[in-house]
Amino acid sequence: MTRVVVDVLLKPEILDPQGQAILGALPALGISGVRSVRQGKHFEVELDGAADSEALDRVRRMAETLLANPVIEEFVVRVESAHAG
Amino acid sequence: MTRVVVDVLLKPEILDPQGQAILGALPALGISGVRSVRQGKHFEVELDGAADSEALDRVRRMAETLLANPVIEEFVVRVESAHAG
Repeated sequence: MTRVVVDVLLKPEILDPQGQAILGALPALGISGVRSVRQGKHFEVELDGAADSEALDRVRRMAETLLANPVIEEFVVRVESAHAG
Repeated sequence: MTRVVVDVLLKPEILDPQGQAILGALPALGISGVRSVRQGKHFEVELDGAADSEALDRVRRMAETLLANPVIEEFVVRVESAHAG
């Protein structure tokens, strides 16, 4: 079994109102020194087999079609752990 | 400037209907070999200074109070990059 992580973020040129709302709330919490916050989505995907190139192609296809909107978002696929089981 | 990533996920014992909906949609896309999907949130936080322990404490406080609901969610803080600027 292999765990693959997909992180989806808005493209840098797309406005992120959620991130800006978080940034705007920080002074009221007394938290300083934060320059920017961007919010995205995080997916943990468990695969039955190994994370070979064919399996990662399937994860990328899943990310493109289901997890991200490629018009406004970009994603990163990362293999987190591989262990028998 | 330093980039810190906060990933927020539902605790393992909490049902994740979004992840299950994604898993349920995969066969119709012809994607097999996926055992489970869990959806969470991903935050990219840019700090003014270095990611020293005091700065990471502030990020953890922000995660506990703003980014995650500690009753049902857990989070991981990770320093992604540190560079001058």
